[in-house]
Amino acid sequence: MQDVSTLVAQAREGRPRAVARLISLVEGASPQLREVMAALAPLAGNAYVVGLTGSPGVGKSTSTSALVTAYRKQGKRVGVLAVDPSSPFSGGALLGDRVRMSEHASDPGVYIRSMATRGHLGGLAWAAPQAIRVLDAAGCDVILVETVGVGQSEVEIASQADTSVVLLAPGMGDGIQAAKAGILEIGDVYVVNKADRDGADATARELNHMLGLGESRGPGDWRPPIVKTVAARGEGVDEVVEALEKHRAWMEERGVLAERRGARAAREVETIAVTALRERIGDLHGDRRLDALAERIVAGELDPYRAADELVAGLTRGGSSGT
Amino acid sequence: MQDVSTLVAQAREGRPRAVARLISLVEGASPQLREVMAALAPLAGNAYVVGLTGSPGVGKSTSTSALVTAYRKQGKRVGVLAVDPSSPFSGGALLGDRVRMSEHASDPGVYIRSMATRGHLGGLAWAAPQAIRVLDAAGCDVILVETVGVGQSEVEIASQADTSVVLLAPGMGDGIQAAKAGILEIGDVYVVNKADRDGADATARELNHMLGLGESRGPGDWRPPIVKTVAARGEGVDEVVEALEKHRAWMEERGVLAERRGARAAREVETIAVTALRERIGDLHGDRRLDALAERIVAGELDPYRAADELVAGLTRGGSSGT
Repeated sequence: MQDVSTLVAQAREGRPRAVARLISLVEGASPQLREVMAALAPLAGNAYVVGLTGSPGVGKSTSTSALVTAYRKQGKRVGVLAVDPSSPFSGGALLGDRVRMSEHASDPGVYIRSMATRGHLGGLAWAAPQAIRVLDAAGCDVILVETVGVGQSEVEIASQADTSVVLLAPGMGDGIQAAKAGILEIGDVYVVNKADRDGADATARELNHMLGLGESRGPGDWRPPIVKTVAARGEGVDEVVEALEKHRAWMEERGVLAERRGARAAREVETIAVTALRERIGDLHGDRRLDALAERIVAGELDPYRAADELVAGLTRGGSSGT
Repeated sequence: MQDVSTLVAQAREGRPRAVARLISLVEGASPQLREVMAALAPLAGNAYVVGLTGSPGVGKSTSTSALVTAYRKQGKRVGVLAVDPSSPFSGGALLGDRVRMSEHASDPGVYIRSMATRGHLGGLAWAAPQAIRVLDAAGCDVILVETVGVGQSEVEIASQADTSVVLLAPGMGDGIQAAKAGILEIGDVYVVNKADRDGADATARELNHMLGLGESRGPGDWRPPIVKTVAARGEGVDEVVEALEKHRAWMEERGVLAERRGARAAREVETIAVTALRERIGDLHGDRRLDALAERIVAGELDPYRAADELVAGLTRGGSSGT
């Protein structure tokens, strides 16, 4: 295979196959993973990462596609990461992506990647930041992270973004569901899509009301705007971009952007460290130490806490720190 | 408070308040946790742990209650652990328990405990085994672990049991749902409850068919039986007990029981060890080491893997192995 530095150079030139290869390397925990991440580190940190989330049917893909169009008009390079926690498929060339994003498929300024993480080692919290880092280092100005459905994993993904967009649509009972899923806490910008349908105003009003019920805000605090769109016709999309830019400017002004990125990096390190330690524990299955401890527990000779102490002591003595 | 050895002695005598106190101590990760677990270790290992799972509405509580009655007739001491992963409530004296288990409430040979683990440190995988160990050490001959709903947590709980019972009811579309939730892989005994209703035979047939579609079994392998019950009238409950005893005998004969208990203890140790290590990582937030690493990542000076290495090295050098 090509060496990592060649791949990174090609990715920076915008060659989609190099980007795809790098994401596969980081996603699959390949032996080159560490080399890739070390090579990417000095190149990343420039992209603006926008998370898009919302229930199925609100028009996430259409909205993402419309945002890509808007950012492309500004001459920006755009990366799209479509995360589906329930799908067993992962890769760069899914038919679904190509279809819904078909208008951007031949645009060299757009890189689209789908990611499935069911059963993935460490889950979304582990895989998504790595893919974002590749797109960032590859020179994307904006990275749109679109997640399917609303739930814990989506909230997790939202925490990877600089700005989180929560999409709703009229007449889906989204208001109550949104509150349930806790998405009222994660949105920096709210979009009521399909605003040409009945009930759009009511949805926006209800949302506005619920946002007002949240904790009180100080004079300099961010008040999440609610933007109405008809993404399929491109209506309101410029206003979404404007809201995003406002949020970004606000974050930069207040030091929030650096804060968020710091917290994100800390979580990422934590996840990698815990995964590494967990794997080391898993490795012990092979050498029968854990099994031997388990047998002593079953026999009543040892309690699980003392056993865990022994296990941890064994791990932390002279273990190398491999992934 | 009373000392641990007194509490353990009182629990062995069947005093419900001592049992309740011990479960609270292990559930809440109290300072005495380790002392309690060390005291319980030599006393546990005698109880037969039966997991009961199934969708809401199949009659789990009624079935559990009927099984309690059946085991009490045999003179056995019975512990019931009702786990609701979605409930924020936990404790020994919930009204719900008392109502649905009212016929056993005044029986000193029965101990009923509900457990809620939403947001619990380490989740169900951490808390349930500890409570089971208390009931076991307290002298319960049989422990029934009833879980509400079907999902990942329930599958986790089922893995704590010696024998897993999956409950279904006619006309709930359970067949397909069961397959989806993977409960067809966890059942050692299947119960079609509410068998006096229309469709009971069809449900049993469909289930039988689906179980047959699974991997082929050898001559000595366990073929999960399907028992029809009307738990509310006690019908078929003796047959369930019989199926459980058969499964237990089969497991003992083939060494499967020791194997399962060993695997369970190994998982328990693993969970405790990972939790302990994760907490140590969490502690680093306090001393700013993780934050300092995160800042260097954001600045592009360090990649997250090298940062995780530093973190793990810091942890594993001279760290004590406290919980």
